[in-house]
Amino acid sequence: MKLGIYGLGRMGANMARRLSRGGIEVVAHNRSTAPIDELVAEETHITGAYTLNEFVDALPSPRIVWLMLPSGNVTEEAISQVLPLLDEGDLLIDGGNSFYQDTIARAARVQKSGVHYMDVGTSGGVWGLKNGYSLMFGGSDEAATLITPAIKVLAPAADRGWGHVGPVGSGHFVKMVHNGIEYGMMQALAEGLDLLRAKKAFDLDLAQITELWRDGSVVQSWLLDLTAEALAEQGQGLEHIAPVVSDSGEGRWTAKEAIDLGVSAPVMTLALQMRFASQDAEGYGNRLLSLMRNAFGGHAITKK
Amino acid sequence: MKLGIYGLGRMGANMARRLSRGGIEVVAHNRSTAPIDELVAEETHITGAYTLNEFVDALPSPRIVWLMLPSGNVTEEAISQVLPLLDEGDLLIDGGNSFYQDTIARAARVQKSGVHYMDVGTSGGVWGLKNGYSLMFGGSDEAATLITPAIKVLAPAADRGWGHVGPVGSGHFVKMVHNGIEYGMMQALAEGLDLLRAKKAFDLDLAQITELWRDGSVVQSWLLDLTAEALAEQGQGLEHIAPVVSDSGEGRWTAKEAIDLGVSAPVMTLALQMRFASQDAEGYGNRLLSLMRNAFGGHAITKK
Amino acid sequence: MKLGIYGLGRMGANMARRLSRGGIEVVAHNRSTAPIDELVAEETHITGAYTLNEFVDALPSPRIVWLMLPSGNVTEEAISQVLPLLDEGDLLIDGGNSFYQDTIARAARVQKSGVHYMDVGTSGGVWGLKNGYSLMFGGSDEAATLITPAIKVLAPAADRGWGHVGPVGSGHFVKMVHNGIEYGMMQALAEGLDLLRAKKAFDLDLAQITELWRDGSVVQSWLLDLTAEALAEQGQGLEHIAPVVSDSGEGRWTAKEAIDLGVSAPVMTLALQMRFASQDAEGYGNRLLSLMRNAFGGHAITKK
Amino acid sequence: MKLGIYGLGRMGANMARRLSRGGIEVVAHNRSTAPIDELVAEETHITGAYTLNEFVDALPSPRIVWLMLPSGNVTEEAISQVLPLLDEGDLLIDGGNSFYQDTIARAARVQKSGVHYMDVGTSGGVWGLKNGYSLMFGGSDEAATLITPAIKVLAPAADRGWGHVGPVGSGHFVKMVHNGIEYGMMQALAEGLDLLRAKKAFDLDLAQITELWRDGSVVQSWLLDLTAEALAEQGQGLEHIAPVVSDSGEGRWTAKEAIDLGVSAPVMTLALQMRFASQDAEGYGNRLLSLMRNAFGGHAITKK
Repeated sequence: MKLGIYGLGRMGANMARRLSRGGIEVVAHNRSTAPIDELVAEETHITGAYTLNEFVDALPSPRIVWLMLPSGNVTEEAISQVLPLLDEGDLLIDGGNSFYQDTIARAARVQKSGVHYMDVGTSGGVWGLKNGYSLMFGGSDEAATLITPAIKVLAPAADRGWGHVGPVGSGHFVKMVHNGIEYGMMQALAEGLDLLRAKKAFDLDLAQITELWRDGSVVQSWLLDLTAEALAEQGQGLEHIAPVVSDSGEGRWTAKEAIDLGVSAPVMTLALQMRFASQDAEGYGNRLLSLMRNAFGGHAITKK
Repeated sequence: MKLGIYGLGRMGANMARRLSRGGIEVVAHNRSTAPIDELVAEETHITGAYTLNEFVDALPSPRIVWLMLPSGNVTEEAISQVLPLLDEGDLLIDGGNSFYQDTIARAARVQKSGVHYMDVGTSGGVWGLKNGYSLMFGGSDEAATLITPAIKVLAPAADRGWGHVGPVGSGHFVKMVHNGIEYGMMQALAEGLDLLRAKKAFDLDLAQITELWRDGSVVQSWLLDLTAEALAEQGQGLEHIAPVVSDSGEGRWTAKEAIDLGVSAPVMTLALQMRFASQDAEGYGNRLLSLMRNAFGGHAITKK
Repeated sequence: MKLGIYGLGRMGANMARRLSRGGIEVVAHNRSTAPIDELVAEETHITGAYTLNEFVDALPSPRIVWLMLPSGNVTEEAISQVLPLLDEGDLLIDGGNSFYQDTIARAARVQKSGVHYMDVGTSGGVWGLKNGYSLMFGGSDEAATLITPAIKVLAPAADRGWGHVGPVGSGHFVKMVHNGIEYGMMQALAEGLDLLRAKKAFDLDLAQITELWRDGSVVQSWLLDLTAEALAEQGQGLEHIAPVVSDSGEGRWTAKEAIDLGVSAPVMTLALQMRFASQDAEGYGNRLLSLMRNAFGGHAITKK
Repeated sequence: MKLGIYGLGRMGANMARRLSRGGIEVVAHNRSTAPIDELVAEETHITGAYTLNEFVDALPSPRIVWLMLPSGNVTEEAISQVLPLLDEGDLLIDGGNSFYQDTIARAARVQKSGVHYMDVGTSGGVWGLKNGYSLMFGGSDEAATLITPAIKVLAPAADRGWGHVGPVGSGHFVKMVHNGIEYGMMQALAEGLDLLRAKKAFDLDLAQITELWRDGSVVQSWLLDLTAEALAEQGQGLEHIAPVVSDSGEGRWTAKEAIDLGVSAPVMTLALQMRFASQDAEGYGNRLLSLMRNAFGGHAITKK
């Protein structure tokens, strides 16, 4: 089997590596050339393509073109450039973190050319190369059949960690909700550890506690595993880390989707909102609250 | 009518003033003497008492002793000191912000001596002297009858803004819940104004908007009135105010009471929790979240 | 002054009435004719127009056409129908609850024809006819000048309760956020009263308590006024009311806007989510939680 | 090694079994006799004790008495009955879910008699017998040394899943916070799956999705494992499960502790509050909200 990967950022490059190591032939393309050179030098089954034409020409029919690009305009433009070079029956895959409604719209456009379109939601982060990626994809059965051999290599095991979950868009949708759950679980864990630490009288060792919870407890989870390992390595002071938590598209999309569907999802949403609060250096809302307290109760306003 | 006020802090002193201006005779006592002197010099119907014995002796039978002291130990000790000086049929009032369960326990103790006990939850802040206080009190009908003439003077009007809401403890309970609602309303207002301000493209004038909402809108409220006035006076930048919001006992008690009663009160509770977040300079929970993001996704940790 | 109102639902009809009673000439149009007939029969300064052509012809130049229609398609279609009938310099107003981004897009389209476009966010509900409406509008200064005489009549007072808050779209934006605040305030009040009621030992009278809070308390608000009056009239049992709370576009838009702007607005959002929970007869999420509790702890699952 | 277990409910009986199967001699006591008979008949290393005197006499010095009783009065009374029968240097363990502040108070009382006191927070539910229990305990080093051989048998492995986390009380504290995290994680997962299901257009198979997430995804967790298995067995309709979620002491204690410590723990708290909402058949707060909507906006109140 041979397929093309366009986009050799952290995720795309590692997926190419895992495919190559699993015996899949990969044609690798990227805007800048250094990542191509690096992969080609490193892996047996990867060949480089320095232009889109070269990239497309190197693929057997039906071609499989797997985009691993930042969501939004970059993906949009790449599709516009690649699509004219593809033939009927080829398969174009968006493996990035696109918003599922964009995916549905793009699929409609792509499919007009007779090209299959598929979305593959991918989880696994920096651990995917070693442990395999969690893959949830949407599209036609025909497209799914084309891609399954590669999926089995990318996944943690040939029969686990992946699934064809529904029509086009559903892969990105399921991945989006996965991230919403991730936000909520992370926040729950962080709140609990924060509470343990706030109980100064017990002088608890968070590395010890997270480590012991890894076996037999109800909160056993990969996030707990990683936290325990990181605390053991870095110590529990965390003075080197800024108390500011970034957020990404999926967390926002999930919260908004829940609102659109009229589903009460307060924990996933709050986990996002607490990140916003952490990012808010100005604290205007809090200033207003102090203003009000002063106005009705004469409470002191701490001067800055 | 003549009654004694013990505790001449901001609330106690202003209540003494309002009573005096309404023709009620007030005997004023305080640990430090300056506030007594000040009140006596200022008001026609206030006399000072510099010791507890003097204070109690100056009151006609049945005595009405109104405590306006910080909740907790200070109130507890004052009751222990005053109670032995009182006679059967006298009335001891806790007008402070005591936790209602403490009030119920104290009432049981006080009533063993044949002294009436009453709790008066009081709202009105710095505006009470001018506009009158909102008063919600708990206790027996007999005690309520004794105190009603003074209540009518303290309240915004003789027939409005006060009520005998139930048995001992219920006054403090109702006041506590009032403050919980206050927290939620304040947070709602602050969030909305924060959102208006965040919409930079519209360059909105918050003083104008809060002012115009004061008439005809659904969010008409005293908190809005005060906010509009403060924004008009101080400007909307609020650079002089620290983004740190204090909290007081009632907010915490309300949130915990809701948990004890199994009542879902997420908005009142969150308003409190957002204040906690504003007070949290260390941000340990947020550091943990960044740690986790780095551990699973390789996301950058902003160094501090 | 003479203007046209298109859309004689509850809001539009009452605004026409208030304009007429304030001496403004109103041409009233509606898809169905009964509301036109009713208004014409009732008010001195209202004339009816049964077709759009008739409607537009009855207005002096520059025409002022005020749409009071349901947001979304209905407003969209009305604009498409009216716009070709208008001349350069006329003013088209959307007084409904449109999403502000739709408003901005529509304004761009309308202004291409040389017609002014203005959005007027309107609050006041069923009380607006009597008490006046809270009006926040966006658009050019020229448009604002045209409409101000009518605004002064619609508002609670000529100099209060209205404002030109910014460019096109800002009126609907400010109204949207107003509703978000409204959601939060309502939820805070409902939670507090629910908590009072749950304290069975005190057997509190919610009509009494809400009534007494109306004077002197920090939670004084129009929502409290209405609640106190309704509880006094209907009793506090509320057995006749279903425990299901509807939501409307603005609440959802506000929550999503906060997410888009990265503003933490948990209370406004939760107030919306609690409404969703109240609407959720199936309770699938809760079934899942019971399933999990059974799976790890053997806890009983209540059979339905 | 030989120790006594008092309380043969689901947890206590299974812990006795696991100890026996690991070669630890167990003296089993219970108020009712049937559970004793059952264990004795079933396990090689368990002997029964039908009275407290018999129980205590059967234990070698220093005695280890492990209480596995419901928290609150039952545990309190058992301590009062057992303590007089113990000698200096014996060890009394509370392995139940007591509130940590009660534990600290009890320890002070017990230690006056020269008896060691230790709290063992235990997680593992119905799976503990097979997989081992997660054990977090508080107490002196001397007490910890006494109990460690048994702990190693109860835990998932001799060197994993257990820890001496701090002084008396800290075991129950850490277990309490563990449960708070559990609440938050469960709620996050339930919200996400509810959202997947609400997206009717995709007709997603939750059993498939939860199963595939078990490998490689960020949300890998024991709760996910159990959910995937339960959905596979029971189908995703869950019509047989009532949408009402119970809560237990630890969830409430955690939320209140966070408030006492001034730690913002919104997700853990909300997870609890959503359970309260699920338990609230009356929906009084929601009726109030509908009442308000009707009062200001004339919105229909759905009659029940």
